[in-house]
Amino acid sequence: MNRLEKQIQFILEVDKLKGVIRRSFLVGADRLENSAEHSWHVALLAMTLIEHSDLEVDLLRVMKILILHDIVEIDAGDTYFFDTEGNANKAEKEARAADRLFGLLPADQEKEYREIWEEYEARETNEAKFAYALDRFMPALHSYHTQGRSWKQHGITLDRVLTLNDPIKEGSKELAGYAEKLFYDAADKGYLKDKQPIEKPGS
Amino acid sequence: MNRLEKQIQFILEVDKLKGVIRRSFLVGADRLENSAEHSWHVALLAMTLIEHSDLEVDLLRVMKILILHDIVEIDAGDTYFFDTEGNANKAEKEARAADRLFGLLPADQEKEYREIWEEYEARETNEAKFAYALDRFMPALHSYHTQGRSWKQHGITLDRVLTLNDPIKEGSKELAGYAEKLFYDAADKGYLKDKQPIEKPGS
Repeated sequence: MNRLEKQIQFILEVDKLKGVIRRSFLVGADRLENSAEHSWHVALLAMTLIEHSDLEVDLLRVMKILILHDIVEIDAGDTYFFDTEGNANKAEKEARAADRLFGLLPADQEKEYREIWEEYEARETNEAKFAYALDRFMPALHSYHTQGRSWKQHGITLDRVLTLNDPIKEGSKELAGYAEKLFYDAADKGYLKDKQPIEKPGS
Repeated sequence: MNRLEKQIQFILEVDKLKGVIRRSFLVGADRLENSAEHSWHVALLAMTLIEHSDLEVDLLRVMKILILHDIVEIDAGDTYFFDTEGNANKAEKEARAADRLFGLLPADQEKEYREIWEEYEARETNEAKFAYALDRFMPALHSYHTQGRSWKQHGITLDRVLTLNDPIKEGSKELAGYAEKLFYDAADKGYLKDKQPIEKPGS
């Protein structure tokens, strides 16, 4: 296969990201979100909210990170942020997925995309921190604006939700402040199950 | 509302793009594609296939164009490429949609996004031409790799499909060459209804 054929094989394979279902309910449609449309949305957040980043970031890098960040879920599945057990062997499953999926590309591009994904996972660069902040901020908006539908389904408490704010704070204090207000307001409105232990998410 | 509140209002409103259904069947799932996940996919194409662009392009601009290019469909709907009638008043409907949707943003950002979208529609800059080439290339891949499911449904002929190649050629002769081979192969395989007039797409 030549370079273009390899790239097209990759492009067709990652079409499957549209079939990976997340735990967030949409505001604009009555269903759960998939990881491909989520990736579009957070890339749009990056270009729209960059002025609120506390870190100096290269927007193109942030957008590349966000377009690629969930592709490993094609093999590894989406792991709910609040699922402690599911998060335990997540790294291993996702690394194998990265081998297979990025391995479809020409070698130089496989290396590039692998590095972008590993940069995101490591959360050390400014771009990875800001991207991760947006990736945590968007589900907060979805959950709040669907009256906590997903939080209620999984019995999420205010304590748990407030832990979301640490990564958001690392990217943007303004976004974290906004999210914090939403979380307390959600608790007031009964969208969150306060002071209860987390329940295993049903499927 | 302050800037952030306006931006969040926009971000929540455009969640509706996930409910705009296109005419392309997915390869990775048994259903039609929506415009949000399509936008993710073409942004991925941009970063993956940029080496095949015949034009010198700013990748960040191409990605911004592709993330925003279909947002007007929230109000205007998706118009099938081969629907001559639907394409007649498309520009007007979309301009009204752009007024409303980008109008949710702070004024400077409304101007920026409006310009990006108008740049795309005008197809004059290298970035707009390359973005449009990718936007035409991806549905060709989807149609071919679903045995012409969408083409058959709408009675599309080889002649019609070959007109797709003009915009692809403007961005990349290599991608256009690849697509042309697919189209002739599709005709051979009976995925296309040759020499027949276009049927009105059913809804």
